[in-house]
Amino acid sequence: MSAPIVHGGGITEAAARFGGRLEDWLDLSTGINPCPVALPEVPERAWHRLPDRQTVDAARLAAREYYRTHGVLPLPVPGTQSVIQLLPRLMPENGKTPASSRVAIFGPTYGEYARVLSAAGFAVDRVDNADAVSAAHGLVIVVNPNNPTGRAFAAADLLELAARQRASGGLLLVDEAFGDLEPELSVAGHVRGEDNLIVFRSFGKFFGLAGLRLGFVVGSEPVLAAFGDWLGPWAVSGPALTISRALMQGDTAAIAAGIRERRAGLDAALDATGLKRIGGTGLFVLVEHPRAALLQERLCEAHILTRKFDYAPTWLRIGLAPDPAGDRRLADALARMEL
Amino acid sequence: MSAPIVHGGGITEAAARFGGRLEDWLDLSTGINPCPVALPEVPERAWHRLPDRQTVDAARLAAREYYRTHGVLPLPVPGTQSVIQLLPRLMPENGKTPASSRVAIFGPTYGEYARVLSAAGFAVDRVDNADAVSAAHGLVIVVNPNNPTGRAFAAADLLELAARQRASGGLLLVDEAFGDLEPELSVAGHVRGEDNLIVFRSFGKFFGLAGLRLGFVVGSEPVLAAFGDWLGPWAVSGPALTISRALMQGDTAAIAAGIRERRAGLDAALDATGLKRIGGTGLFVLVEHPRAALLQERLCEAHILTRKFDYAPTWLRIGLAPDPAGDRRLADALARMEL
Repeated sequence: MSAPIVHGGGITEAAARFGGRLEDWLDLSTGINPCPVALPEVPERAWHRLPDRQTVDAARLAAREYYRTHGVLPLPVPGTQSVIQLLPRLMPENGKTPASSRVAIFGPTYGEYARVLSAAGFAVDRVDNADAVSAAHGLVIVVNPNNPTGRAFAAADLLELAARQRASGGLLLVDEAFGDLEPELSVAGHVRGEDNLIVFRSFGKFFGLAGLRLGFVVGSEPVLAAFGDWLGPWAVSGPALTISRALMQGDTAAIAAGIRERRAGLDAALDATGLKRIGGTGLFVLVEHPRAALLQERLCEAHILTRKFDYAPTWLRIGLAPDPAGDRRLADALARMEL
Repeated sequence: MSAPIVHGGGITEAAARFGGRLEDWLDLSTGINPCPVALPEVPERAWHRLPDRQTVDAARLAAREYYRTHGVLPLPVPGTQSVIQLLPRLMPENGKTPASSRVAIFGPTYGEYARVLSAAGFAVDRVDNADAVSAAHGLVIVVNPNNPTGRAFAAADLLELAARQRASGGLLLVDEAFGDLEPELSVAGHVRGEDNLIVFRSFGKFFGLAGLRLGFVVGSEPVLAAFGDWLGPWAVSGPALTISRALMQGDTAAIAAGIRERRAGLDAALDATGLKRIGGTGLFVLVEHPRAALLQERLCEAHILTRKFDYAPTWLRIGLAPDPAGDRRLADALARMEL
C-alpha cells in the first residue's frame, strides 16, 4: 500500500486541532462549487433497484450532449478516482494499448496519478512541456486546466501531442476535472472511435455534488470497454445516474454564472491583500506567499481551511466561499495578518 | 472482455419484448426486499462534499454492530460486485495471500465469481462439497446461503473449512449477500486479525436499496488494506454512507418481519400450484419445472418477470412481491397455466 495523499476537505481533522464547531468553519480547501444546485427528485426506483440499462443509457446520452462528444457515449464511473485506480491495467504488461510502460505526467498536478502509477511499479516522469515527452512514454497525463496551478493548454496543442504519441503507440489522457467553465479548452469532442486520446470528466466539482461519486470517461471503444469490464456491472449508483441526467439537461449556464460570481467575490477579497495570485481555475485561486504553511495555519485559527502543498511551500490554494459573507470573512482574516 | 451474464432486473428489455408499461410489470426476477424502507434524511453535506473520514468511520461502526464483527471494522465498498472485480488481484501472481492460483467455487451459484476469475486466467473448479476442496485451491468461494439454490452451510462447517485451508495458505471467501435474515449462519463474527477468512455482505438486498451500490467486506487487516488501496479514496458515495449508518442503527427487526411476511405471501401463492419448491432464501424461492423457460415466458406474457437459468433449464427463481395483490396476481397467472 502506498502512502495516502492528504487532500483538501479535511475539515473534521482541522476542527479537532483548531477548535470550533464543524458548521462554523469556512471550508475553502477544495475546488468544488460551494453553491450546490437544487437536487432533482430521485425516483424511488433509482434507490430501490439495480440501475438498469435504460437508466445508464439516459445518463450517457445526457453526458454526450453536455460534454459535446458527438459520436462517443461517455462512460459513467463512480468518481474519476475509480478510473485513476485502473490506469495500471491500461499499461503494456497488461496487454493493453500503450507501447511503453513509462509514464509522463505534466506537473506538479493532482497527486493521485503519480501515486497510483508509481505504486504499481511504473516509471513516472514529471514533465513541464511537450518537448519533454518522447516515444518512450506509453502514457502521457495532462490535467487541463491544471490543479492547482491553473495552467491551461489550448485544445489544438493537446491534439498535436496526441497525434505525435499515436505514432509510437502512446496514449494521451486529459483530465478535464475543472474544464466545465472553459469548454473551449476541451478535447472531449475530438475523441474518435479508435483514437489514442482519453478524457476524464468530473461531475461533482462543477455541480457541487462531490459526495455523489460520479465521473465520465470519453475514449475509444476498446478503452471504454476495458474500463467498463474492470469496473463490472452496476458500478455507478442509481441516484447518481438520474441526478446527473437531470442536471446536465438543466440550466448549466446559470450554474456557471453562479460560480463566476463566487470567483469574482474571492478575487475582490484577495485584491485587498498583498497576496500574489499565480494561478487558478474557475473554482479556485492559487496564491504565493513565502511562508504559506504559516499563513494556512493562521487562517485555521480563524477557522478558515485552505490547502497547502508539501511539495511547494510557497503555495496556497483557496477555493470559493458559498456567499459574500464568506468572502468578507476571508478578507477580514487576511487583513488582520501581516502578510 | 468476457461475455456479460444476464442477471435479474431486466424489466426494461422484458417490457420491450412482451409489451405493457414498465410500472405495470411485477418484477420478481431479483432477490431484493420489495418494500424499501423509508429513507432517512441525507444531510446536504453528504451530497455536496467528498465523504470525509468521520462519515466513513461512522458507517463502519454501525456496520460493525449490525454484522456483529467484534474487533473488525467492515470496509464499505461500492457494491459487492466492485470487490468481486478485484479478486484476481488477491491471487498469487499478484503477490497476495493465496499459495495457489486455483479457485474452488461451490456451485452452481452467483455467476460473477466464475466469470471474473476465469476471465483473469485462473483455473476455476466448481465444487459441490468440502471434500472436493484441496490444498491446490488458493481461494475457495461459498455463497451462504446460496443463490439461487438456498443451500446453507452451518457456520461451524465453514470455519472448519477455513482452518483446513489455512494450513495450505488458502483463503476462504464467504459471500453472505442473503445472510441478513439468517444471522446464525454468519461467520462474519469469526474473522480475526490475521485470518484467512473473508466475508462479503450486501447492503442493498435486505434494505431494499440496491440502487445505492453498497457492500461491506469483513477480513483481516492486510486484506481490507489491499481492497481499500485498490478502490482508492472516496470509493463509496456520501449518501450511501449516511443512509446505511442510519438504517443499520434503526429497527432492522421490523424490516426482517416485513420480508418474512412477504415471503409467506409468496409461499401461499405457490402452495395453490403444483410447482415444486427446491430451495430459496428469505428473499426468493427456487422452483422446479420440466419446462421452466416456457413457464418464464408465459409469466412474461402476464407481465410478471421471473428469473430462469441457462445452466439449469428446469429452474425458476421467484422473488418477493411488494404486497398481497402481487401474490394474488402471481397465483392467478399460475392458476391459468397448465403446469
